[in-house]
Amino acid sequence: MIPKNKIAYIRSLHDKTNRISDGVFLVEWRKCMLEFMNSDFEIVEWFFTEELVLQKQYKFPYQIVTIGELARMTTLTSNDAGILLVKMLDHRVSKIKKDELVLVLDKINDPGNLWTIIRTADWYGISQIICSPDTVDCYNTKVLMATMGSFIRVSIFYTDLDQYLSEIQWKIYWAYLNGESTHTKDFSARWGYLVIGSEAHGISANLKQYITDRVTIPRFGLAESLNAGVATAVILDRMMG
Amino acid sequence: MIPKNKIAYIRSLHDKTNRISDGVFLVEWRKCMLEFMNSDFEIVEWFFTEELVLQKQYKFPYQIVTIGELARMTTLTSNDAGILLVKMLDHRVSKIKKDELVLVLDKINDPGNLWTIIRTADWYGISQIICSPDTVDCYNTKVLMATMGSFIRVSIFYTDLDQYLSEIQWKIYWAYLNGESTHTKDFSARWGYLVIGSEAHGISANLKQYITDRVTIPRFGLAESLNAGVATAVILDRMMG
Repeated sequence: MIPKNKIAYIRSLHDKTNRISDGVFLVEWRKCMLEFMNSDFEIVEWFFTEELVLQKQYKFPYQIVTIGELARMTTLTSNDAGILLVKMLDHRVSKIKKDELVLVLDKINDPGNLWTIIRTADWYGISQIICSPDTVDCYNTKVLMATMGSFIRVSIFYTDLDQYLSEIQWKIYWAYLNGESTHTKDFSARWGYLVIGSEAHGISANLKQYITDRVTIPRFGLAESLNAGVATAVILDRMMG
Repeated sequence: MIPKNKIAYIRSLHDKTNRISDGVFLVEWRKCMLEFMNSDFEIVEWFFTEELVLQKQYKFPYQIVTIGELARMTTLTSNDAGILLVKMLDHRVSKIKKDELVLVLDKINDPGNLWTIIRTADWYGISQIICSPDTVDCYNTKVLMATMGSFIRVSIFYTDLDQYLSEIQWKIYWAYLNGESTHTKDFSARWGYLVIGSEAHGISANLKQYITDRVTIPRFGLAESLNAGVATAVILDRMMG
């Protein structure tokens, strides 16, 4: 039986602020749980239903939860597998590797855009994404589920972009409406930073001073803009090949 | 005052089956309504709130609705503008123009993918999309709103793809995992058909016989697949330039 205060604690992690202050997030879907159990993420606690345990002899120090207890812990409307408490990665930006192409997201507030970008990054072999603090939280269950495994291969950092970019010596590309065509731009370096802003607002004014290269996806029709996830993919496809 | 049976009729159009049998759909959001009023779509009835009318002298034969009446007609949780009843386009496939690039969607069942693809098509100047009958309905309010104006520039047809493609003499490209690289493929013709299947199931087995060219987006990382909307955009970007 799971103590009431443990259930209350896990419920508190539904909230982004509590996740961040504790550095712990929830992993709840069977497929997702298996992915994290096979990853380098540090798992703090394991809660499995009898049903999940019956399928395989797990070596983890799990606790058994009933479906009733789980219903009070989970963010999902239906969960018959269990829940993991997982430690967030070390988000200090000093950990960012600088000799490769890094994605930078400024104020991307739609979860669908974020998970599309994480999957796309993983397709193109990008292993690091730096987000502004007001970009949507990557540790919410929807995002974790929708990235379909890419989450464990792509490291996501949240930091003040103004401060971070001010110290960068490499190229900083910005996907912008009036820049150089991505069809003719020379991307042979394949490293540096690619900054993506929100469709509605672009990037923050104070970041523009750090941009070295403005690039634009040529338009052949009349749409006002491309979805941020789509734009990221189209540019990465040109940068990589 | 709007008669009860009119309100009931409009409510019946929340349902896809009724929309299709009547050939009429609802346009409900202020921005969306203005776009359709400025388009070639044939509007059958106009329902405006006093508030909307106050902003401008409209020449249309509108009826005034109260917010209370509108609440019983709309699919939105909040609507202070009104509702339009709009005629669907003539969907006979004989209307499809054949001397340009046409997108073909097979079993795309996520509304988010459909609206992303419609906007992307509009960006790349694609004016026609043919969907399998089991692709998600483009006339639902969410899709209409999210296409942000592209809907009125891109014609969408629903038809049996097996029959339609069997009569095609042009190139039929398929976005597939083991085809020719989109980075080296010669797309100089810029016309023909590009078939996109669902991420989970690909395209229907019976359509494969019509494919003339299988194309693949090169992968540099480990993600299993790209989102269908993203894949469409990346391929169109290569086809167009």
